[in-house]
Amino acid sequence: MGRLVMKFGGTSVADIDRIRNVARHVEREVKAGHQVAVVVSAMAGTTDRLVGWCRDAAPVHDAREYDAVVASGEQVTAGLLAITLQDIGIPARSWSGWQIPIRTDGVHGAARIAEIDAKELRKRMEQGQVAVIAGFQGLGPDKRVTTLGRGGSDTSAVAVAAALEARCDIYTDVDGVYTTDPRIVSKARKLSRISYEEMLEQASLGAKVLQTRSVELAMVYKVPLQVRSSFDPPDSLDQDRADGTGPGTLVCDEDEIVEQHVVSGIAYSRDEAKVSIRKVKDRPGVSASIFGPLAEADISVDMIVQNVSADGETANITFTLARKDLRKALEVLNRVKDKVGFLELTHSEDVAKVSVVGIGMRSHAGVAARMFKALADKGINIQAITTSEIKVSVLIDEAYTELAVRALHAAYGLEAAN
Amino acid sequence: MGRLVMKFGGTSVADIDRIRNVARHVEREVKAGHQVAVVVSAMAGTTDRLVGWCRDAAPVHDAREYDAVVASGEQVTAGLLAITLQDIGIPARSWSGWQIPIRTDGVHGAARIAEIDAKELRKRMEQGQVAVIAGFQGLGPDKRVTTLGRGGSDTSAVAVAAALEARCDIYTDVDGVYTTDPRIVSKARKLSRISYEEMLEQASLGAKVLQTRSVELAMVYKVPLQVRSSFDPPDSLDQDRADGTGPGTLVCDEDEIVEQHVVSGIAYSRDEAKVSIRKVKDRPGVSASIFGPLAEADISVDMIVQNVSADGETANITFTLARKDLRKALEVLNRVKDKVGFLELTHSEDVAKVSVVGIGMRSHAGVAARMFKALADKGINIQAITTSEIKVSVLIDEAYTELAVRALHAAYGLEAAN
Repeated sequence: MGRLVMKFGGTSVADIDRIRNVARHVEREVKAGHQVAVVVSAMAGTTDRLVGWCRDAAPVHDAREYDAVVASGEQVTAGLLAITLQDIGIPARSWSGWQIPIRTDGVHGAARIAEIDAKELRKRMEQGQVAVIAGFQGLGPDKRVTTLGRGGSDTSAVAVAAALEARCDIYTDVDGVYTTDPRIVSKARKLSRISYEEMLEQASLGAKVLQTRSVELAMVYKVPLQVRSSFDPPDSLDQDRADGTGPGTLVCDEDEIVEQHVVSGIAYSRDEAKVSIRKVKDRPGVSASIFGPLAEADISVDMIVQNVSADGETANITFTLARKDLRKALEVLNRVKDKVGFLELTHSEDVAKVSVVGIGMRSHAGVAARMFKALADKGINIQAITTSEIKVSVLIDEAYTELAVRALHAAYGLEAAN
Repeated sequence: MGRLVMKFGGTSVADIDRIRNVARHVEREVKAGHQVAVVVSAMAGTTDRLVGWCRDAAPVHDAREYDAVVASGEQVTAGLLAITLQDIGIPARSWSGWQIPIRTDGVHGAARIAEIDAKELRKRMEQGQVAVIAGFQGLGPDKRVTTLGRGGSDTSAVAVAAALEARCDIYTDVDGVYTTDPRIVSKARKLSRISYEEMLEQASLGAKVLQTRSVELAMVYKVPLQVRSSFDPPDSLDQDRADGTGPGTLVCDEDEIVEQHVVSGIAYSRDEAKVSIRKVKDRPGVSASIFGPLAEADISVDMIVQNVSADGETANITFTLARKDLRKALEVLNRVKDKVGFLELTHSEDVAKVSVVGIGMRSHAGVAARMFKALADKGINIQAITTSEIKVSVLIDEAYTELAVRALHAAYGLEAAN
């Protein structure tokens, strides 16, 4: 019962047959008595085609026009799903971002949702009409269409759920959140529940199930988020489980997780690059002279390691960043070389980040130590470390990624747990 | 100088290279000092694909959702052309129907434009920004996207030109309006000018250069309309001709046509079907009992021929209609058979309509007579006739279409005239 937002990604709506399958999932929830809003992505391949056209038209192009072009993909899916729902007797209506409207800021191509006026949606949902909403888009202050950036449909769904005070089910091509990537560890276990904080770390650390911003938003607005598979037969998901969880993984407040594990998952990312600056003159303000220009160039730096050299007068600074930003970062640093004063710049793309995540870490000592030991046992060298309250990440040689993930999954007993 | 609306159809914007070609046409007009708005169709093939998806989703579907899906095609082209224009240094901005807005009535799938608020467009055009407008669409009273029906981009262009008090150039894949279809008569001659009335008849009678409603609208608002080719090299169209006409065909008020011809063109349409109702009881109100139900079923009837039978008590009624409506018409008539009282219903799709058009007919007698003689000379039987002030149409066996067109083109000396 109650209000429910269902979100379906590009592969779940890739063709009319799959859209029909989505309609059956929606039908099930409507028949269960829910007031339903559905958020859809563009049909798989559509956004890439539209982006390709924009690039062909001009390699560097106006983000406003890019948004106008690219947002069309989701509008098509929304209309087609509305037609399909009506065809099986379910009242439905499609909504583009500007129609609701979903108001965003003016950062075209990567807009953030500012406000959703859900009055009309609520009214119609109460009357039994399913609202089919084009994800990934909104209306900017300039009255032009904005898009939220790749993967933004998850964010749309959570924002709509927040505005409707609804639960949010994210349908994807996997059936939940696992302790780690099942392609690497065949015994990876599906979690029935995971906390917002852990999911957020997982998403930022490379797990691709949910988009980081959507989890942030869910956490802030306490939107119960469920990850489940759109490829399961629509009828088999009829009933919630006896333990109160659904068939997928529920992302929720940690208070709602009865049986907490110290570590809930192992994440990894190959999207890393490492830059080392050798023999930097060690003086006050030197870090700012390096990281200031990088920030100005919109480059996010992740791990930072600083060692004083043997001579005591210079330092070596190593940091990591997203692989796509490497070239730009090197340009920026070479430009400020004289001002900063350093001897040498080296870089590597053969690195990966492997992370252990778990809210139980807060109250359990020895999590990091166990990680370092497990890696050492396999002869894996740690190049850098960062930690937060609920995660430990290490940078390693990329070739050891799978080995490290398997060793850590075993070391924390993740496959054995129930 | 002054304001100019340029319209480009689907084949003119079929891919990025062609869109770039369109941008060069626009550049030429901007450099000539015009304030330019461009109206674009969807890239060739796009609308068919979108329509196909709607049909696959449900053979009978909500016109509102059809509109939401199908209107996306023009939005994509508008964004891509804006990007391409900006890339060659011309300020440009895309506009969807709802953004301007182009207000229409609520007849989804075949809406009529009610009002265009061109204030913002005017302002920006005065500032030198080219407005790239998605054709074929508007915003209905229900705040939902409407479409104007196939070929509606011509209508969009004329309506925008009327609102901007601008000239309207329709770029297409032919370089103007011809005395008849050059694929049938190789010596068909391009007209430098044609009156609104003649163009309207031509369009209704099967010539595919311009959409009927766009010509109607141009006539009402006195929008000078020029038909020209988008495949000519953009630079070669630089100058208007010495006689004041452009490189294509100007559709204008008849007062502006100095050298008037009695007949300006021969049109034909194979999109015809014929229905004969035999032995209808001849009593008052019988016509209404036949054509009333057809009108209610939204079927337009064209030519009607009624003969009293030999018995003096019954009549035979023959009429023509669009081929696509034939099946529905037969259903309607069979349903009312008992009420109307007739013996037999026969039909044929092997018919074509050939028409002679010219404003000179008003003041010249003998136009129809010459037509009938030319056809008789070739042994072509006339099955039905309709006339208006400026056209004579005949229904013939479809197999004789080309022969009839060639005979009439020669009979009125259309190829010889200058």
